[in-house]
Amino acid sequence: MLEDPLQPRRLDEASAAEIGEAIYSLACELYPICRSITGRGVRETLEILSRRIDLTRHEVPTGTALFDWTAPKEWTIRDAWIKDASGRNVLDFAASNLHVMSYSAPLHARMSLDELKKHVVTLPEQPDLIPYRTSYYAERSAFCMAHSELSALSEGEYEALIDSELADGSLSYGEHVHRGRTDQEFLLSAHICHPSLANDNCSGLALLALIARALKERETRYSYRFLFAPGTIGALAWLAANEDRLSRIAHGLVVSCVGDGGGPTYKRSRRGDAFIDRAMVHVLAHTGLKPTILDFSPYGYDERQFCSPGFDLPVGLFQRSAFGTFPEYHTSADNLDFIRPMHLQASYRMIMDAIDIVEANWTPRNLSPKGEPQLGRRGLYAAVGGDKTGVAGMMAMLWVLNLADGEHCLLNMAERSGMAFREIEKAARLLREHGLLADA
Amino acid sequence: MLEDPLQPRRLDEASAAEIGEAIYSLACELYPICRSITGRGVRETLEILSRRIDLTRHEVPTGTALFDWTAPKEWTIRDAWIKDASGRNVLDFAASNLHVMSYSAPLHARMSLDELKKHVVTLPEQPDLIPYRTSYYAERSAFCMAHSELSALSEGEYEALIDSELADGSLSYGEHVHRGRTDQEFLLSAHICHPSLANDNCSGLALLALIARALKERETRYSYRFLFAPGTIGALAWLAANEDRLSRIAHGLVVSCVGDGGGPTYKRSRRGDAFIDRAMVHVLAHTGLKPTILDFSPYGYDERQFCSPGFDLPVGLFQRSAFGTFPEYHTSADNLDFIRPMHLQASYRMIMDAIDIVEANWTPRNLSPKGEPQLGRRGLYAAVGGDKTGVAGMMAMLWVLNLADGEHCLLNMAERSGMAFREIEKAARLLREHGLLADA
Amino acid sequence: MLEDPLQPRRLDEASAAEIGEAIYSLACELYPICRSITGRGVRETLEILSRRIDLTRHEVPTGTALFDWTAPKEWTIRDAWIKDASGRNVLDFAASNLHVMSYSAPLHARMSLDELKKHVVTLPEQPDLIPYRTSYYAERSAFCMAHSELSALSEGEYEALIDSELADGSLSYGEHVHRGRTDQEFLLSAHICHPSLANDNCSGLALLALIARALKERETRYSYRFLFAPGTIGALAWLAANEDRLSRIAHGLVVSCVGDGGGPTYKRSRRGDAFIDRAMVHVLAHTGLKPTILDFSPYGYDERQFCSPGFDLPVGLFQRSAFGTFPEYHTSADNLDFIRPMHLQASYRMIMDAIDIVEANWTPRNLSPKGEPQLGRRGLYAAVGGDKTGVAGMMAMLWVLNLADGEHCLLNMAERSGMAFREIEKAARLLREHGLLADA
Repeated sequence: MLEDPLQPRRLDEASAAEIGEAIYSLACELYPICRSITGRGVRETLEILSRRIDLTRHEVPTGTALFDWTAPKEWTIRDAWIKDASGRNVLDFAASNLHVMSYSAPLHARMSLDELKKHVVTLPEQPDLIPYRTSYYAERSAFCMAHSELSALSEGEYEALIDSELADGSLSYGEHVHRGRTDQEFLLSAHICHPSLANDNCSGLALLALIARALKERETRYSYRFLFAPGTIGALAWLAANEDRLSRIAHGLVVSCVGDGGGPTYKRSRRGDAFIDRAMVHVLAHTGLKPTILDFSPYGYDERQFCSPGFDLPVGLFQRSAFGTFPEYHTSADNLDFIRPMHLQASYRMIMDAIDIVEANWTPRNLSPKGEPQLGRRGLYAAVGGDKTGVAGMMAMLWVLNLADGEHCLLNMAERSGMAFREIEKAARLLREHGLLADA
Repeated sequence: MLEDPLQPRRLDEASAAEIGEAIYSLACELYPICRSITGRGVRETLEILSRRIDLTRHEVPTGTALFDWTAPKEWTIRDAWIKDASGRNVLDFAASNLHVMSYSAPLHARMSLDELKKHVVTLPEQPDLIPYRTSYYAERSAFCMAHSELSALSEGEYEALIDSELADGSLSYGEHVHRGRTDQEFLLSAHICHPSLANDNCSGLALLALIARALKERETRYSYRFLFAPGTIGALAWLAANEDRLSRIAHGLVVSCVGDGGGPTYKRSRRGDAFIDRAMVHVLAHTGLKPTILDFSPYGYDERQFCSPGFDLPVGLFQRSAFGTFPEYHTSADNLDFIRPMHLQASYRMIMDAIDIVEANWTPRNLSPKGEPQLGRRGLYAAVGGDKTGVAGMMAMLWVLNLADGEHCLLNMAERSGMAFREIEKAARLLREHGLLADA
Repeated sequence: MLEDPLQPRRLDEASAAEIGEAIYSLACELYPICRSITGRGVRETLEILSRRIDLTRHEVPTGTALFDWTAPKEWTIRDAWIKDASGRNVLDFAASNLHVMSYSAPLHARMSLDELKKHVVTLPEQPDLIPYRTSYYAERSAFCMAHSELSALSEGEYEALIDSELADGSLSYGEHVHRGRTDQEFLLSAHICHPSLANDNCSGLALLALIARALKERETRYSYRFLFAPGTIGALAWLAANEDRLSRIAHGLVVSCVGDGGGPTYKRSRRGDAFIDRAMVHVLAHTGLKPTILDFSPYGYDERQFCSPGFDLPVGLFQRSAFGTFPEYHTSADNLDFIRPMHLQASYRMIMDAIDIVEANWTPRNLSPKGEPQLGRRGLYAAVGGDKTGVAGMMAMLWVLNLADGEHCLLNMAERSGMAFREIEKAARLLREHGLLADA
């Protein structure tokens, strides 16, 4: 038997359940940190990730030009609260870091209830949840609060404090690279700028870290680049730093919201039919779930930057429930109960399947193309073993032989036959082993 | 703000209802006239139209070669009736000009009821309606009558008169041209050969006249050519006279049956994907109605001639209910009650929207194509204003920026985003104003 | 009128019912023979066919290299039975030739019931049917039996005999060629290796023989090659013998299971859009039945060989019920009651319709392409006669004239108009007769 390019992965997935637990456990560790686009939260997060994987940390000084943007000031948040006239805390940053609008400017003032309400964002239709809000590029001081709690406040004077600071410093992001046999790269990117939101995006950060760790055990054709960067500005910083090497990005996925049981959802790259698009559509079609495949649109996560017309990289977006479509989205309900190890494990599996396709795909040429070769004489009917597996294996061999004219890669054969890539790849390996196939 | 190319139209539509009334009123004026492919009825119709718009009238002498055809004789109809033995009129041309088969040869004879019936066409399945029938290219003398009235006639002798004349003369048609900045033309054509049928095609004649009047107020990129000509032979006459200038026809619409509440219906040009096809499909998809889009077929109105293989012009057919699909079609029930100002106004709006697309379409190039430009810093989030409108405006800007690689025109962006052309065009204008777009 | 290329066929189909009966009758004659991939059964079948049509018989010596295969030994089967201890026959080859696994090696032994069962194949889920099984390329001795009969056997000793022989000899196949005006060929192929199975494939053999006989009366553009060969190895033998002439194969159909009332089913050639694919899709769409059109897959009959990547011939598969989808498939229930003259006749009609398209297709050029030519003046409205037929005829003429730009063949016009090829072809003939069309 030839080497099975999928083998190493199978080994380190010996216990799929363990992987789900490991991702969940890392997500739990990341959850409490108050991240924003800059500042200590991002660095703490990178610090935790670097205990799992080798991480190169980059610091981009405030004011650095990043295409049409500049690296923003660094945000420090120390404390925040609102006290009523009796000195009782009616809101406390210590209870939830969502209580402060992310990147909020400092504030310390006494004010009437009416005045206070101008500084508080709530969700009247989800009255018990704290909303997640940001104000990165317009300076603002604000709190976020459950609508029911705001409504319960009585008239009177309140004291409000946001002990934050916006000062020159730097923008942080982390990068991990797994070197493969070629310098063609698969980019995997997760945003690191959201505070205590479990699905969006502790799940993505943790899942990518575990994939990076798994790849360590594996010799790969592609190099894999993992990017943990704040949304928009972090992606732009990375693009600016790597502009002359972007032609190496052969495939890419932005990963977020991968811990809930919805979807799966894949949004195609701007190109629409990039290899990663076809691979993900194939993988999701074979999950047994009901995937949603979306055409590219210019709203979402950092695929917006990677797929801007000046770059047009082959990068899609992978999610379970699509952002904005689940009620927990951008609220305090996106917590550690909302994500589950089993879903994290399934999401991990889907990305790994896409990696398998990228790794194992090739374009064969049938060395006996006139009529079918006599498989029986080579023991290839037997070789694929009994019953249904055998039939699938034989069909896969017939498909591979028939399409191996040098014009069809294995993924193309899988698409055309409706069979799983894994079956097709296995058949092609067997046929090559028996001298019936060669590289096209 | 840059000039809004759609602005002038909006002004003269200040009162949409008034336009519906104005079209209806003109249709009412045209309705009583007994038109045919040649003769006084066509000239009277052109005379009425020329009170609204500048009209160039053409007269093509009988016998003039028009490709495979020749200009036919001119038809004059003065009177027609059938009298029973007692001298009582049982059919009178004065009551309805549908009573005489269009282009009927003269007749004066006494005959039995059985003999008479050979000269009368009825609609047994719509017994109270008078059919509309023609016999242009085979000489025939005949009446059209409600089946119930024919059935009520008793045995006996009848006297039948068709006081008509077929003699050398000329074929008449009218043309109005609105000059634009270029000599590329948008052809708008309506047939003028049907007698008292309101939808087919007083509605089309009146609607085009009002569009011509509206364009007068507007400086346009394209020149607009309005053709009011008898079906088939009139279109052929115009084609023969303009054969060497047909390459100027960039877009075209044949317009008929635009006063009822059905459809809307668009039949694609023979090319199938001409710009006018895409524009009309887009406009109709955004009406909120349930449009029917038909592929080209070689039966219908003058698109048959414009789309014959020797010309293959980019001309489609616009209707509300498609011809032949409504029970009033080609009967006396296609009267002034069947068409309504509100439907005429809506049809006017659809054609004007297509004109807007043709006028305002361009292909932009993103001047900041690497990542998204920072819209917030330019006040462009604010600029598009509050809430849902704001979201749509922002999405439109993101779509335009993302697709502005010089390969996509605004209509293409509208198609791909699913947004209305108007939203896309507005976003592109705003972005150009802020220096983010240039001509590709 | 120009010569009607479809006329001769209509003549010899004067009585469609007779043709169904004739095919059925020939199928009945072929049914009892015990065919396998080699041996007397194939020769007897060719003998019967050669009484209907001129047949060239080929004998390929055992051991001849056929691409990746070699011609197998010749199989002779004389007798087979199983007797119980009392000497009573519990299975007898004389009762059904399905009782012996096709190509079974000789056997003569006494054995216990348990031992015997290892040599018997049954269908537990269809207990009263004898399965059809083969073992061509792995030497094996086995019986096939109704499961109910095997279950009824009591313990005890049994004597089992398969009086067969596998010896050097030859592989036989037959070929009939109808010469047309060109040496471009239409290949029609049916497998000849199945024993007493009526639908699979006595129906196909008989139907092709009757088509060959019908073509004898007809002067054709294409040459028609009929191949009656054992599955896989026979097709390979023919391909090996004709490798340098395969470029002549312009169209091809593999024909099997054409006597039941299911389907019709057409599986496209590997090319997917070969002319034969389009012709068959068109024919089946106009049957009034609910056809199933399948994309190519590399499992089935000899299209597997013809469409292997080294040949990639434009050959599809025509069936009524698709193989493997009806319960009678590969059992003793696929008998002469399962196939019906009316279905055979309908299948014959479908193939003949495809032949008509192949024969009568051409690409016209409109000699009066500017506007519509005046059909009335040429009597062409009248020429197509009254009412609905007339309307269809006129529509067909308008379609042909409109699409006759030299880019569209008649089949393409039929596809685009949704009209039957027959109507389009008739209209084109009429228009050519009137000088309005010429060859493109």
